[in-house]
Amino acid sequence: MKVIFEPEGRRVEVPSGTSILGAAAKADIIFETPCGGKGHCGKCRMQVISGAGEPTAADLKIFSKAQLQAGMRLACQNRISGAVVVSVPDEARFFGQTILTDGIAASFSANAAFRKLHVTIPHATLEDQTSDLDRLKRAVAAGLGRSDGIGGIGIRLQTVRTLPAMLHEHANAFTVVLHGDEIAGFEAGDTASACYGVAADIGTTTVVGLLVDLNTGKQVLAASRINPQVARGDDVISRLTFIREDPGGLKDLQDRIVGCLNEIIAELCKKTGVPRDHIYELTAVGNTTMSHILAGVNCGKLAEAPFAAVVRDAMNVNAHDLGVHINPRGNVYISPNIAGFVGGDTVGMILATNLMHGDPQRVRLAIDIGTNGELVLAANGQVISCSTAAGPAFEGARIKQGMRAAHGAIDKVVFNDAIDVSTIGNAPPRGICGTGLIDSVAEMVRTGVVDYTGRIIDPDEAPLPDFLRRRIVSNGDSNEFVLVDGEKSHNGQPILLTQRDVREVQLAKGAMRAGMEILLSELGLTAQDIDEVYLAGAFGNFIRKHMAKGIGLLPDIDSEKIKFVGNAAGAGARMLLASKNCRAEAERISTNVRYVELAGRPDFQQAFMTSMLFPGTNEQR
Amino acid sequence: MKVIFEPEGRRVEVPSGTSILGAAAKADIIFETPCGGKGHCGKCRMQVISGAGEPTAADLKIFSKAQLQAGMRLACQNRISGAVVVSVPDEARFFGQTILTDGIAASFSANAAFRKLHVTIPHATLEDQTSDLDRLKRAVAAGLGRSDGIGGIGIRLQTVRTLPAMLHEHANAFTVVLHGDEIAGFEAGDTASACYGVAADIGTTTVVGLLVDLNTGKQVLAASRINPQVARGDDVISRLTFIREDPGGLKDLQDRIVGCLNEIIAELCKKTGVPRDHIYELTAVGNTTMSHILAGVNCGKLAEAPFAAVVRDAMNVNAHDLGVHINPRGNVYISPNIAGFVGGDTVGMILATNLMHGDPQRVRLAIDIGTNGELVLAANGQVISCSTAAGPAFEGARIKQGMRAAHGAIDKVVFNDAIDVSTIGNAPPRGICGTGLIDSVAEMVRTGVVDYTGRIIDPDEAPLPDFLRRRIVSNGDSNEFVLVDGEKSHNGQPILLTQRDVREVQLAKGAMRAGMEILLSELGLTAQDIDEVYLAGAFGNFIRKHMAKGIGLLPDIDSEKIKFVGNAAGAGARMLLASKNCRAEAERISTNVRYVELAGRPDFQQAFMTSMLFPGTNEQR
Repeated sequence: MKVIFEPEGRRVEVPSGTSILGAAAKADIIFETPCGGKGHCGKCRMQVISGAGEPTAADLKIFSKAQLQAGMRLACQNRISGAVVVSVPDEARFFGQTILTDGIAASFSANAAFRKLHVTIPHATLEDQTSDLDRLKRAVAAGLGRSDGIGGIGIRLQTVRTLPAMLHEHANAFTVVLHGDEIAGFEAGDTASACYGVAADIGTTTVVGLLVDLNTGKQVLAASRINPQVARGDDVISRLTFIREDPGGLKDLQDRIVGCLNEIIAELCKKTGVPRDHIYELTAVGNTTMSHILAGVNCGKLAEAPFAAVVRDAMNVNAHDLGVHINPRGNVYISPNIAGFVGGDTVGMILATNLMHGDPQRVRLAIDIGTNGELVLAANGQVISCSTAAGPAFEGARIKQGMRAAHGAIDKVVFNDAIDVSTIGNAPPRGICGTGLIDSVAEMVRTGVVDYTGRIIDPDEAPLPDFLRRRIVSNGDSNEFVLVDGEKSHNGQPILLTQRDVREVQLAKGAMRAGMEILLSELGLTAQDIDEVYLAGAFGNFIRKHMAKGIGLLPDIDSEKIKFVGNAAGAGARMLLASKNCRAEAERISTNVRYVELAGRPDFQQAFMTSMLFPGTNEQR
Repeated sequence: MKVIFEPEGRRVEVPSGTSILGAAAKADIIFETPCGGKGHCGKCRMQVISGAGEPTAADLKIFSKAQLQAGMRLACQNRISGAVVVSVPDEARFFGQTILTDGIAASFSANAAFRKLHVTIPHATLEDQTSDLDRLKRAVAAGLGRSDGIGGIGIRLQTVRTLPAMLHEHANAFTVVLHGDEIAGFEAGDTASACYGVAADIGTTTVVGLLVDLNTGKQVLAASRINPQVARGDDVISRLTFIREDPGGLKDLQDRIVGCLNEIIAELCKKTGVPRDHIYELTAVGNTTMSHILAGVNCGKLAEAPFAAVVRDAMNVNAHDLGVHINPRGNVYISPNIAGFVGGDTVGMILATNLMHGDPQRVRLAIDIGTNGELVLAANGQVISCSTAAGPAFEGARIKQGMRAAHGAIDKVVFNDAIDVSTIGNAPPRGICGTGLIDSVAEMVRTGVVDYTGRIIDPDEAPLPDFLRRRIVSNGDSNEFVLVDGEKSHNGQPILLTQRDVREVQLAKGAMRAGMEILLSELGLTAQDIDEVYLAGAFGNFIRKHMAKGIGLLPDIDSEKIKFVGNAAGAGARMLLASKNCRAEAERISTNVRYVELAGRPDFQQAFMTSMLFPGTNEQR
């Protein structure tokens, strides 16, 4: 069946019964699908110009009669039974977003698991009939300066099988690839200087890959992609639900992330000229769900109590077996986890921020604000962690006009005599991204448009400057705040913040802040004891500190103490790639960082209730 | 094209161009092919009853005009271009032979690499969110009584992937399969008592498999087969030549031995009712060439100086990857070698005879007489070894009317007032097998029919009893000895020993004996210093000691000192299967037993010349 997507005019041929969402993916048009294509969220709306079928039950709930008559439908719910022409509005599309790739890594010395060695092997004689492999091992041991003989040097049979031809064709001189103490392969000539790896940070939403020179541990280039699993829901719980409910769900999600890593690898290779076969290892950090999915381990039960992971350990798997397009003999190392909702990305952050070391008397808090917020507190010689389901509000989801940090997103808001907004790319505003949302709500709180309980007040309830008062409009049950007037937006429609949007912000920041309070109280501390806060992750690094303090996402501490550490998880992945010592450290982190479960704790419920409130208005502070 | 084989009347359909040898194999009719199907040896002779083509060059060399006209052809040289009917005489067939399966093993305690453990795993709770894998590891560590925690317990990702379903479907109680310290798989229910392995002794000619209970180390059943590689030549050098000359040679030979092992495994499973999936490991001992072929490692260069092996080490490979039909997660362990021509079978023999241990002052010599003769001497705290290319004479090859130890083979000969022969199965004599050959030559030497140089004397050259003198007949250049008159043989033709046959025996026993002398002289000893001789292998165990001394194959020492140890290599394979300690010992044997290369040594040449001579006749002794 032929499907045409407008305004691009892209044509694809798909089998009858394919969803329009699926057909669109084939045409490289990706819809926003926060609900995972279940017909709940209404984000994947589009207009069927010709060939529209009867509205589905989901369509009837979402669209008005007029909209339905105009052909408005949900892409996820409508299946193709004949030729159709479809128009996809910008709002429904998943746009590329700014992805933070770099992070600050703690200092480490490079001693990668893979290394290369050029060797020349003496020929056997009647006087010395030592086997080829033992002569090779002797040359390797000598090259590595090992004094403990060849006993510890291993090799797999499939590699042994390639040895006779290598010796024969290259006159006993060639390059040996070593994986730890194992001879992993051979390369003709002297290629010892060309040894690379890829460090991958697999987020629920974004995936970053760093090409790293394994001889130096230095980053060569970064590339990133949206995690294509977003088509199955934009948070971890949706992915877990998909795994539980669809027998092919795990495989689908694994294929998506492997495909995504392969795209990143291809880009890194193309841009640097490094051949794929010279990449011998990929390390991956991600939350526990992402790690399990990449490994192909069914973690569906993470969605319910007691939230135990299947695997805490680091996992190693042959690259070829996993379908990752580096050297087929290469290895994929998946970082260990700490708990079901504190994963390898947090291990990476702890590595990069050196939380396990340094002055044990300093109180240090590391925060990765994402769909889940992970918090790690180091103090009094202990390191403890927790995870809070902040939800994807800061990533633009569940916010009526929320969007990711992409072209046209409002990313900065200040209320002066008027409302000043800036957008990414200085484009006409399309929606609000996370930092814009924090700014807006912080400013609404500061100016009293929102009271400390989070309610948008009535226009005349309190004295407000005129430019604010006139922006408060009623929506029947509650009020809304017009952030951008229609004439200034990209499509002539005003950009609003609803009462519900403010509640979403309260839930998200309340969860984060409550987690913080629980960790502090576990060690008998309060926010005022904190010496340093490390803000990690794509979102954390664009936050304006005073705005975050303004809504109470961060405690009211000296801004000097708050430090941006960039993509700390990615930096940790690079450390894991370039240093075996860091892997041993990751194992220690995985077993020694104590996880604090918040679910079911009465004190967390209490802290959550309190933390949802906003700090007093400007006047009260 | 249709081919019919008589007298069975078996029909097969094969493509045009197939050799008759190949078509016969398809009909389960196996020819003797000592030369590997090259048209040299003339053993695969058969009669084409209808559809005979023009004789090939090889046919013209082997057959007389009359034979050619009668349709006599070599099965290896003639290809099928139309329907043919072929008659295959018994002499050309490769018959099953008596294969020695049991051997005497040194005492050892069973601690197999694979073992099973039934575990019950506590469920996770909100208070103990320990990952599934860590809870499994704790249960395993407790079950094994390990006090060092779970750190040393490994698991591969593919096994981890099966864990969630196992936990879910079997309520956290099931059986764990352990491979060393690695969790290798899971089985439903409590199957801890059903854990098996197969110990394989891969000879150039015969293959023996022993089903072993890994919990006790005890043998359950033995099965054996002819090594189907014999179709590519009956000695190691023919196989190596095939590997060097045919690009698919290695694969062909590997497929043959893997197929053979699978037949043996199928027989063992069928006869015992042990399911294939409960067999978790196969250990293989064989000469260095057999080990390399099984592993799929190209060892073609073993055919030429300096005879260095590719691999000395033990090799481990996943059973499924190798195509061996045990549990797909099972392991194949291929014994380490000592040198290019002293392989894992010798390592097995040293293990089984305990040569590395015991009283270091006793002089002990172990001998495995096969196509190659391997000798190991333990004395003065040293253990040294060598290999001699005895050739396949004792297996019946290269002897005009030689045959393997199969039905109808003359296996025992005594010259009293007449020539008394016995045959295997008491059948009418068809040919002479190794022990019959030794007996015959020993008796010819004792009675003076053969002089000490190996010459069959003229009938009237010396006084001989009449029943012997009349059996010496001239064949133009040399004499022949009629062992069995025509009327007593299976086909009315007399069974003869030619001068050339005697020379073959001289070469074979001379090589063995010279190797022995060199080993003794290396340690400053002589044959009279020997305290014990262990005779191993199928052939060695049927030798009559005084006959072997009579031809000088064994030195003239007290027969009490000569001990039969049975299939010592097979016993060693069983020890390697049932005991990790024995594997560590095998590694020590592999590196510590000194190999003495005989090639190019002037003293070996000298010893060989001397050893070819026979001891003086009865009168002279």
